[in-house]
Amino acid sequence: MATLGDIGVSAVINILTAFAFLLAFALLRIQPINDRVYFPKWYITGKRTNPRSGGGVVGKFVNLNFKTYLTFLNWMPQSLKMSEDEIISHAGLDSAVFLRIYTLGLKIFGPIALTALLVLIPVNVSGGTLFFLRRDLVVSNIDKLSISNIRPKSYKFFIHISMEYLFTFWTCYMLYKEYGRVASMRLKFLASQGKRAEQFTVLVRNVPRVSGRSISDSIENFFKRNHPDHYLSHQAVYNANKFARLIRKRDRLQNWLDYNQLKFERHSEKRPTSKKGFLGLWGKKVDSIDFYKGQIKELDKELTMERQRILKDAKAIIPTAFVSFNSRWGAAVCAQTQQSKNPTLWLTNWAPEPRDVYWKNLSIPFVSLSIRKPIISVLVFALVFFYMIPIAFVQSLANLEGLERVAPFLRPLIEWNFVKSFLQGFLPGLALKIFLYILPAILMIMSKIEGHVAISVLERRTAAKYYYFMLVNVFLGSIVTGTAFQQLHAFLHQSATQIPRNIGVSIPMKATFFITYIMVDGWAGIASEILRLKPLVIFHLKNMFIVKTERDLERAMNPGGVDFPETLPSLQLYFLLGIVYMVVTPILLPFILVFFAFAYFVYRHQVINVYNQHYESAAAFWPHVHGRIIASLLISQLLLMGLLSTKKAANSTPLLIVLPILTLTFHKYCKNRFEPAFRRYPLEEAMNKDMEDRASESDANLKSYLADAYLHPIFNSFEEVELVEVRVEKSQVHIPSPSPSDPSSPSPRPAYHHEDEPSYDVNRYEVEEPQTAYHYEVEQHQTAYHHEVESYSNMFQYDTESNHHVYRY
Amino acid sequence: MATLGDIGVSAVINILTAFAFLLAFALLRIQPINDRVYFPKWYITGKRTNPRSGGGVVGKFVNLNFKTYLTFLNWMPQSLKMSEDEIISHAGLDSAVFLRIYTLGLKIFGPIALTALLVLIPVNVSGGTLFFLRRDLVVSNIDKLSISNIRPKSYKFFIHISMEYLFTFWTCYMLYKEYGRVASMRLKFLASQGKRAEQFTVLVRNVPRVSGRSISDSIENFFKRNHPDHYLSHQAVYNANKFARLIRKRDRLQNWLDYNQLKFERHSEKRPTSKKGFLGLWGKKVDSIDFYKGQIKELDKELTMERQRILKDAKAIIPTAFVSFNSRWGAAVCAQTQQSKNPTLWLTNWAPEPRDVYWKNLSIPFVSLSIRKPIISVLVFALVFFYMIPIAFVQSLANLEGLERVAPFLRPLIEWNFVKSFLQGFLPGLALKIFLYILPAILMIMSKIEGHVAISVLERRTAAKYYYFMLVNVFLGSIVTGTAFQQLHAFLHQSATQIPRNIGVSIPMKATFFITYIMVDGWAGIASEILRLKPLVIFHLKNMFIVKTERDLERAMNPGGVDFPETLPSLQLYFLLGIVYMVVTPILLPFILVFFAFAYFVYRHQVINVYNQHYESAAAFWPHVHGRIIASLLISQLLLMGLLSTKKAANSTPLLIVLPILTLTFHKYCKNRFEPAFRRYPLEEAMNKDMEDRASESDANLKSYLADAYLHPIFNSFEEVELVEVRVEKSQVHIPSPSPSDPSSPSPRPAYHHEDEPSYDVNRYEVEEPQTAYHYEVEQHQTAYHHEVESYSNMFQYDTESNHHVYRY
Repeated sequence: MATLGDIGVSAVINILTAFAFLLAFALLRIQPINDRVYFPKWYITGKRTNPRSGGGVVGKFVNLNFKTYLTFLNWMPQSLKMSEDEIISHAGLDSAVFLRIYTLGLKIFGPIALTALLVLIPVNVSGGTLFFLRRDLVVSNIDKLSISNIRPKSYKFFIHISMEYLFTFWTCYMLYKEYGRVASMRLKFLASQGKRAEQFTVLVRNVPRVSGRSISDSIENFFKRNHPDHYLSHQAVYNANKFARLIRKRDRLQNWLDYNQLKFERHSEKRPTSKKGFLGLWGKKVDSIDFYKGQIKELDKELTMERQRILKDAKAIIPTAFVSFNSRWGAAVCAQTQQSKNPTLWLTNWAPEPRDVYWKNLSIPFVSLSIRKPIISVLVFALVFFYMIPIAFVQSLANLEGLERVAPFLRPLIEWNFVKSFLQGFLPGLALKIFLYILPAILMIMSKIEGHVAISVLERRTAAKYYYFMLVNVFLGSIVTGTAFQQLHAFLHQSATQIPRNIGVSIPMKATFFITYIMVDGWAGIASEILRLKPLVIFHLKNMFIVKTERDLERAMNPGGVDFPETLPSLQLYFLLGIVYMVVTPILLPFILVFFAFAYFVYRHQVINVYNQHYESAAAFWPHVHGRIIASLLISQLLLMGLLSTKKAANSTPLLIVLPILTLTFHKYCKNRFEPAFRRYPLEEAMNKDMEDRASESDANLKSYLADAYLHPIFNSFEEVELVEVRVEKSQVHIPSPSPSDPSSPSPRPAYHHEDEPSYDVNRYEVEEPQTAYHYEVEQHQTAYHHEVESYSNMFQYDTESNHHVYRY
Repeated sequence: MATLGDIGVSAVINILTAFAFLLAFALLRIQPINDRVYFPKWYITGKRTNPRSGGGVVGKFVNLNFKTYLTFLNWMPQSLKMSEDEIISHAGLDSAVFLRIYTLGLKIFGPIALTALLVLIPVNVSGGTLFFLRRDLVVSNIDKLSISNIRPKSYKFFIHISMEYLFTFWTCYMLYKEYGRVASMRLKFLASQGKRAEQFTVLVRNVPRVSGRSISDSIENFFKRNHPDHYLSHQAVYNANKFARLIRKRDRLQNWLDYNQLKFERHSEKRPTSKKGFLGLWGKKVDSIDFYKGQIKELDKELTMERQRILKDAKAIIPTAFVSFNSRWGAAVCAQTQQSKNPTLWLTNWAPEPRDVYWKNLSIPFVSLSIRKPIISVLVFALVFFYMIPIAFVQSLANLEGLERVAPFLRPLIEWNFVKSFLQGFLPGLALKIFLYILPAILMIMSKIEGHVAISVLERRTAAKYYYFMLVNVFLGSIVTGTAFQQLHAFLHQSATQIPRNIGVSIPMKATFFITYIMVDGWAGIASEILRLKPLVIFHLKNMFIVKTERDLERAMNPGGVDFPETLPSLQLYFLLGIVYMVVTPILLPFILVFFAFAYFVYRHQVINVYNQHYESAAAFWPHVHGRIIASLLISQLLLMGLLSTKKAANSTPLLIVLPILTLTFHKYCKNRFEPAFRRYPLEEAMNKDMEDRASESDANLKSYLADAYLHPIFNSFEEVELVEVRVEKSQVHIPSPSPSDPSSPSPRPAYHHEDEPSYDVNRYEVEEPQTAYHYEVEQHQTAYHHEVESYSNMFQYDTESNHHVYRY
C-alpha cells in the first residue's frame, strides 16, 4: 500500500505527463497546418476561412513566429474570456450546461474540502493509533489521515456523522440551486429560439393500418377530426434503411474514386490500377478510375430502382409520421395527451430536432419495442456482471500456444525470448483492453436496439449503461476484490446489513488507489483530450489522400461534439468518489478539485474552439446528472453506516438512518419541482410564443416553412444521385486544372460551384449521417423546390427533368 | 399439526357456523320490520316504499307467511338473475367490476385446481416418504399430498416447475383477458354516461397568489389567456373546515333534540330533563327540549358569523378551483398538460365526481403535500413492522394487577376465580383486538393526511396500506415465526438468497393453518357479512330513538357501499394464498374455490339489494387488483425457488429464473396497454362525445349546467340553517299530530313537505358527509336558485329574504 511519499511520486509523474501533453498541444496548435484540427469550430461558424499564417510557403505549414512559442499556456486565460451567454449562442446550451457540471463540482467540493481538511484531518490525526488494524492489514500514512485512525466506540464519530449531515445538506443546496438555474436556462433558451420546426411538430407512432386506406389518409383523417383547429400537415416516413445502406456503399466507392483520381492527378504519368477481388488483394488488374466509375454507375442504377420501389410501394411508408400544427399550443397539447382509446395506438410525443432524429429506429413497431427493452435490460445486467467470462475465454485462446497453433510460421519469432516475454505480458490483457475500448460502441448498439428515436436519447441511455458498468466494475470492483460476477455471488449470499459493512470497511483502505486513479485517468487523461491525437492523425491522412475540394476539407476536419456517453459517466464517477470519501478520507478531495478545475479549462477551450454539436437537446441530460449525484449521496451514507457499524459505534450509527430518507425526499421534491421543465412544454410558454409570432408575422407561410422540415433523408439523397453524376462528368473536364499538392490550403472553388447551388457534397454526407448540423439548413434551401412537387409519389417521374433543370441551369 | 381428520372437523364446524349465519339471515330478511336493513337499495332507487307485509298489525313486523320460511336459501338463485349490464345500471360499474374479481378468482383457480389435483397430487403421493422431514418436524397427512413428500434431488420437481410455468401462463392469460374486458367496460361506461360535470371540469391546484389580485381573477386571466377557445367558468373553493365542524356539532345537538321531542311525544305527561355538565352526567338539571333548542340557536348565530367571515374574507378562498370548459376536449387537454413554467403551480388534474370530492384536503398546500407523503410512508412502514411494540406496552399495563390498582373496588370481583381466569385469558388479547378493529380507520386517517382529494383515491390508498399490513403480518407472519419486527431483523441479517429459502421451506408446513384461516375468515366471515348484524342493530336503535320522519328513516337505513379498503386487500390475500400454494400444496385450492364461489353469491346479493355506493370511480381500482395478483405470482415464484433450493434440486431451480422476468415483462406490457385507460381520457373519445352533444343540443345551457356542479358544501349548509329554523318552528305546531309509535312504518309526510322543496334533511346530512349520492341531485335543484345570485359574496345579505322566499312559499 502506498505511503504519502508514493502518492507524491505518482503525482509528480502524472503532472509531468499532463504537462508533456499540454506542451505538445501548445506546439501543435500554433502550426497553421493543424489549424483545422484545433480550431474547427471557427471554420464551421464561418469566422475563419484561412489559418493564421506567417506568410511564405513554409509559413503555411509551420509557425515561424517564435514569439507565440513563449506563451504556450495562454489558451487557458483565453478560454475563460467568453461569457456563458456567448458560449450558449456560440456552441449551444448543451455545451454550456456541460461546462456547468465542472463548476458545480468545484462549488460542491471546494467548501467541503476546506471544511474537511480543517476539521476532520485534525480529528483523525489525533484519533489515536491504528492498533486494531495493524494486526491484519497494512497501514499507510494516508490511513492516518482517514477515519480508520479513530478508535472504535470513540465519540469522535459524532463529528464525522455531523459532517456527513453538513456536507449532504451543502451538496443538496448546491444541487437545488443548480437544478433551478439549469431549468430556467433551458426555458429561457427555448423561449429565445426563433421559429423552429420541432416546436410545431409531434412525432406520431403506431398509426393503425386500416385496410383500403393509406397511412397518410388515416393520419389526415384522425388529426382533422381530433385536432380540427390546430392540425396543419404531416410528413410520412419511409422505411429507407436499405437505401441508406446502398448510399453508404456508394460513398465508400466515391472515396476510392477520389483517392485514385487524386493519385492520377499528382502522378499523371501512370493511371492507378487495382485488383478486382476481395479487399483488392487478388483478382484481375483493372484501371482503378474506370473500375470505380463503373461500380458507382451500377450502384446508381440500383439506387434508382430501390428509390422507385420505396416511393411506389405503400408498404414502405411506415406507420409513423411527423404531424405539424399551426401553433405551438396545438403541438404541445397533442404531444402531452393520449389520443386514442387504445393507448398503444397513435402514440404522440415531441418530435426531436430534425438533425437529432435517428431515422432507422422509426420503423420499429410498438410490440417489438416492448420486447426489446426487457431483453436489453437483461443483456446489460449480464454485460455488467459477467463480461469477464467471454473475455477470460478469449484470453485462454489467445495465449502463445494458441498463437503457435494458428500461425506455425511465427514460431521462430515467438520462441525468441524477448518477444515471448513481451507477448506473455501483453496478450492476456489485450482482449480486455480491446473490450474496454469498444465497450461504449457496444452499449450504443444496445441502446439503438432498444429503439429510441432521437440521437440525444440514445446517447443518454448509453451514458446510463456506461455508468452502471463503471459503478460496478470500477468503483465496487476496486473496493471489493474479485470480479463483478464473484461480487454478485457474494452479495446474494450476504445479508442486507452485511453488504455495506463489507464494502464500507474496505473504503478507507482504497483511498490511495483512487487518488492514483484520479491522477492517471483524470489529470493525464484530460490533458490527452486537449491534444486530440486521433483526430489530428485522421485529418492529416484524409488530407493527404482524398481531400479534393473545400467541402472535402470541411468533412475531413469533422470535430465531433462532447462525447456524452463517455464523459458524463466518468464525470459522475468523480462525483461519487468525492462524495464517498469526503468524510472517510478527506485528503482525496484536493485531487478531485484539481481534476474539476483542470477539466473545466480544457473542455471550455474545446467547446469554444473545437466541438461542433450534432444536435441541441437543451440540456435534457441534466436530470440524469442530478439523479446520479443524489445516488452517490445515498451510496456514501449507506457505506458510512456500514463502516461505522464495524467501528462498533452503535450508539451513533442510528443517527445516520434519517439522512437517506431526507435525501430521497429532497430528490423527490426536485423531481416534482424541476423535472417537468425537461420533459414537457408548458402551455403558458407555448401560448406566449404563439402570441409573439401572431403579432410579428402572418400565419401564411408556416405551412410551407414546416412542409419539408422533417423530410426523410431519402429525398436529399435523391437529388444527390443526379448531382454526383453531374459532378463526375464535370470533374473529368477539370482534371488538368492545377489542383494544389497541398490540400490543406484553400483550393479555389470550381467554376460549377454557384452560390445558389448550395451544398451537394453536404447532401451526400447527409445521407450517411443525417444528424449533422448542416442538415437543417440544407432542407431549408430545398423547400422551394419541393413545393413544386405536389405528391411525393409522382416525384420520381417528375424528377428526371425538373431536378436537372433546377440544378444545371 | 393438523391431520386430514382435523381439517375435516374444522370444515364441518365452519360450514355449520356459516349455515347458522345463513339461517339467521334467511329468517331475519323476510321479516317486514327488517326490510329496510336487507333491501335498502330498492328503497333508495325508489322501487320499493313499503315492506312487503302480510297484513295486520303484527304482520307489519313479523312475517306470517310461513311458506316463505321453507325457501330460505332462495336468495342465491335470485341474486344470479340480474345480468351484468343490469347490475351496472342498477349499482354502478364499481360494484359490477368488484364482482368480476370473484369470477376471475374462479376462472383462474378452477382449471388450476383441477389440473393440480389430477397431476400434482398423484405425483406427490407417489413421491416416496417424508424421511428427511420426520427427523425434526411433525408431519401431517396434508404434507403427504404436498411437495414436501418428494425426495430431495428427485426429477419429479421438473413436473412442479413445468406446472408453475403452466399455471403462471394461465393466470397471466386470464389476467390479460380480464384487464382488457374491464378497460373496455370502463370506456363503454364512460362513453354511455350522459353529460356529467366531471367530464367538463378540471381541478386546478396551487394557483399562485398575486398581490393585488384575487384568486378568482388570477384563474380567470390565466385560463382565458392559455385556453382562449375552451375556458368556460370556474368555481372557487372555500376553506370551510371550521364551518363544517360547527355543522357537525349542530347535527349532534339536533339529534338530541329530536330524541327528547320524541320522548316527550310518547310520554307527554313529563318533559324530559338532562344535566348541563359533561356528557349529561352532572350539573344543573334543565328542560332538555328548551336546553337543546337554546344551544342550537346559539350555534346558529355562530354559524352565521363564521359563514359571513368565510364569504367576506379573501383568505378563505383557497388557491384551488374547479375550472370548467366548454367541451370535453378542452377539459381533457387541460387535465393532461402542464400549464405553467413552474411545474408546481397551476397543477391540473381531472376533477373527481362532485360526490367523490374530499373537500377537507383541497386546502392543503403543495409544499405540505410533498412533506406529508414521505412522513406517512415512514409511519406506514413503522406501523406494519413495529405495531406490536405499543400493543405489548398497553398489554403490560392492562393486566389484572394494573386493573386492581386503577380500580380497587373491583378487587373482590377480580379475585373470584372464574372471572380471574376469564380476564387473564381475555385482557392480553384485548388491546390487539381493538387495534385490529380500528386498523382500517387508522390507515384511512393516514391516507387522509397524505392529502388525496377524492374519496375513491383515499379508499384505494387505504386498501394498499392494509394489503401491506396483511402481507407482512398475516402471510409472512404466519409462515415465519416471531413478530414482524423480528422478521425484519432476521431479513436484514440474512443473505438475499437465504430469505426465500427460509420462507419457502416453511410454506408447505403452514398449509393446514391457511386452510383453517380460509374457512374461518373466508367462509364464516362472508356468511356473517350477509347477516349485517351491526347495521341491523343500529337501524333498530335509531328507529327507536330518533326517527321522526320518512327522511330520518332513510338516513337510519344508510346501507353504505362495498367496503373497498378492507375487502380488496383480503381478496388479494386469497389470490396470494392460492397462487403460492397452487404448486406446493394443491389441496388448498378447493377451499379457495369454495370461498370465491360463496363470496360471489353473497356480494352479488348485497350489491343488488343492499349497497349504495357513495361514488362511482368507474373501476379505477382495477390496476391495483391486477398489479397485486402479478406480485403474488412473483412471490410464489421466488418462494418456490427457495423451497426447491432446499430440496437440493439444483439442476432444476435455474429453470425458474426466467419466469419472474417473463412475468414482469407481461406486467409492463399490460401497464402500457391498459393502464392509460384508467388514468387518462383519450382525446378521440372526448371529441366523439362532444360531436354527439353538438348534434343533439346547443351549447347555450352548458354554462348554467356547470355553474353549480362543484358548489362547495358551504352553500348547501347555508340554506339548511335557515330551513331548520323553519322546521323547528313548524315542528312545534305538529306535535299533537299522531306520530306513530312504530317509527319504521312510513309516517305521513308532514304538510310542509312539498315535492319541489326537495331535500332539506338531505341537505343537512350533506354537510356532514358531502359524498353521499344525493348530493349531486340536490345541487341540480339548487341551480335555478343560485343563478339569481350573481356573486357569492353578496349572497349573505341577499339570503335572508330570498331564501325564505323560495323555500317558504
